[in-house]
Amino acid sequence: MLATARLRTALLVLGLVLSLLGAPRARAADPLPSWNETAAKQAIVRFVGEVTNSGGSNYVPPAERIATFDNDGTLWVEQPIYTQLSFAIDRVKALAPKHPDWKTTQPFQAILEGDLKTALASGDKGLLKIVMTTHAGMTADQFTGVVTEWIGKSQHPRFKRLYTECVYQPQLELLQYLRDNGFKTFIVSGGGIEFMRPWTDGVYGVPPEQVVGSSIVTEFEIKDGKPVLVRLPKVNFIDDKAGKPVGIYQHIGRRPILAFGNSDADMQMIQYTKGGDGARLGLFVHHTDADREYAYDRKSPVGKLDKVLDMASEQGWIIVDMKRDWSVVFPWEKR
Amino acid sequence: MLATARLRTALLVLGLVLSLLGAPRARAADPLPSWNETAAKQAIVRFVGEVTNSGGSNYVPPAERIATFDNDGTLWVEQPIYTQLSFAIDRVKALAPKHPDWKTTQPFQAILEGDLKTALASGDKGLLKIVMTTHAGMTADQFTGVVTEWIGKSQHPRFKRLYTECVYQPQLELLQYLRDNGFKTFIVSGGGIEFMRPWTDGVYGVPPEQVVGSSIVTEFEIKDGKPVLVRLPKVNFIDDKAGKPVGIYQHIGRRPILAFGNSDADMQMIQYTKGGDGARLGLFVHHTDADREYAYDRKSPVGKLDKVLDMASEQGWIIVDMKRDWSVVFPWEKR
Repeated sequence: MLATARLRTALLVLGLVLSLLGAPRARAADPLPSWNETAAKQAIVRFVGEVTNSGGSNYVPPAERIATFDNDGTLWVEQPIYTQLSFAIDRVKALAPKHPDWKTTQPFQAILEGDLKTALASGDKGLLKIVMTTHAGMTADQFTGVVTEWIGKSQHPRFKRLYTECVYQPQLELLQYLRDNGFKTFIVSGGGIEFMRPWTDGVYGVPPEQVVGSSIVTEFEIKDGKPVLVRLPKVNFIDDKAGKPVGIYQHIGRRPILAFGNSDADMQMIQYTKGGDGARLGLFVHHTDADREYAYDRKSPVGKLDKVLDMASEQGWIIVDMKRDWSVVFPWEKR
Repeated sequence: MLATARLRTALLVLGLVLSLLGAPRARAADPLPSWNETAAKQAIVRFVGEVTNSGGSNYVPPAERIATFDNDGTLWVEQPIYTQLSFAIDRVKALAPKHPDWKTTQPFQAILEGDLKTALASGDKGLLKIVMTTHAGMTADQFTGVVTEWIGKSQHPRFKRLYTECVYQPQLELLQYLRDNGFKTFIVSGGGIEFMRPWTDGVYGVPPEQVVGSSIVTEFEIKDGKPVLVRLPKVNFIDDKAGKPVGIYQHIGRRPILAFGNSDADMQMIQYTKGGDGARLGLFVHHTDADREYAYDRKSPVGKLDKVLDMASEQGWIIVDMKRDWSVVFPWEKR
C-alpha cells in the first residue's frame, strides 16, 4: 500500500518535471491590470517591492505586513447613500408596523416618507440612531441571517447591480496583490462590523476576524436553554476618525504599514499608519469620475474629502484619482 | 535565463521523485506525544479527524475551524498568583515614588508591604484596580516596551524559570496540531490583551491579532507632531465569564468549534462554543498535580473550578486531568 502510494506520488511529480521542462512559461502577468501606469501604481509596486526585499533596508517580516482598508468609498460605492443606510431604510420600513411612534419621530418619519434629504440632514447622530435601532433587538445569528438575505438580493439604484458587485476592481486586485506578497488585509470601516462580516470573505477575500468596524453592545444569555448573543440598541464603539487607530489597536494590535481610505474620516488611520518607523504607505481614493462612478470631495455629506486634499502633498499621502489612475472601475466593465 | 531556472527547478523536483521512490517513509509521528493515551486525547483526535474529513457529516471548512484557548491556567501557570499580577506588583513598586498616597491606600499598601494575602483579598475589583492603574498613563508603544522588558527577564517563584517557559507542553502540541489541521488558534483570556500580545506569537504561535483579552480605554492623539495611542486608566472591556463570548463575537465574528479553559470563568465560552450546530469540543484543564504543577479547583481564589465540575458530565465537557492525561507538563521536562 505504502509503496503504491509512493509510486503514484512519484509519477505525479514526474509529470510536473516534464511540464516544467517542456512548456514555455508565460511572462508574469501584471497583478494590477486595472491600474493605469501612473505615479500611484508605481508607488504601490515600489513599496511592496521594498518591504518584501529581504536584503533591503525597508524589509518587513510577513507577520508585520498589515494593510488596512476603509470600506465605504474605498472598496465599494458609497453614493448616493451608504449601502448600510439603504439596508437600514429597508429595515425601518419592515419594522415600522411595530413602531407606530416612528411616524412622528425623526429621522424615522423622513425615512418612512421617502424624504432622504431630511433623514441625511440628521447628521451622523441621526444616521447612527437609525442604524443602531434597526440593527438591535435580535440575536447575533438572527442579524447575520437578515444581512445575508438582504445583501443577496438588493441592488444599487443607479447601477442596477447587487451592492456586492459595486466594488472597485482595482482594489480587488490590490487586496490580492498584497496577500500574494505576504500581507494580511483588514477592513477598518466606520460601518457596522456585523453588517460587513457575512459577505466580506466572499467579496474581498477578507474573513470576518479581519474586519474592524463600529458595533453595538451585545450580551451573552442562555435563552430557552440555548446560549445566544443578544444585540442591544446601544453604541459600543464608533470606528471612525480618531476611533480608527483605536479600533486597529484593539483588534489587530499592530500598526499597519499600508492604509487606504477615501475621506477625512480616514485621516487618523493614515496618520497612525505613517507614524511608524520604516517604509509606510498611505493612500486615499479621490472620486473624480462622474461618468463611471461619482465625482465628489470637499462638500459631499457622504465621504467628505477636504482636509486630506490640503495636507496630502506635505504629508506624503498618495491621492488616487479615480479618473486618471483606474482604467477599470467595476468588475463588470472587464467582461 | 528562464530556461535555466526551469531546468534547475526540474532537477530539484526530480530529486524529490527519487527520494520518494527510494527512502522508506517514517511512520507519521504522534502529534501529541505529551498526552497520555486516555479518553481526553482520543476525544481530541477523533474530533479533529471528523471536522477535517471532507466526506463526513461533521466536516467543517478550514475557514470555520476556529479554536479558542483561555491563557492563565490553560496555557501557562496561574499559581500562586496570575503572572500579570506579578508584573503589576513590580510596576507598583517601580511607580510608588510618584504615588505617595499608595502607602495608605489599599490594595496598593498591601502590595508595597509584601502582604499578598490582603492584596488578593481585595477581589477581582481590587486586582483590576492594580492592573489598570499600573497599565495606563503611557503610550501603547511604551507599554509594549515595558512588558517586553519585564517578560524577558522575570521568573516564576517556584520553578525559577522565565514565565514564558512555564507553559504547558501538551497545549503547545495541541495548538500546533490544530493549526496543522487548518485551525486558526486564538487566545481568549481575562488577562490584559496588551500584556499578552508582545510575546504570544513567539511562545504559542498565536499572533497579536488573534489575541482577545481585557482592555483599558485608549485614545488617539497627535503628541509633539507624532501620532500616538495613549492608554487611559479606565476599563474598556472585561473579557471574562459572560464577557468571553462577547469578546469572541467582537474580535472573531465566528463561533468557535473548539474551546479550552480551566475555570468557571471559562464556562460561558464553552457553552457558546458547544451551542453551535455540528461537531463541537469543549475542554477544561483540571489542575490535579501538586508534584509537577499545582492541585486546586473548587476553593481556589485563582482559577476556581467548581460549577464546571458539577456540570461537565451532563454537558459533555471534557475534563483534562493533568495528572492522568499529561505525560509531560512543562517543556523543560522533555530535555
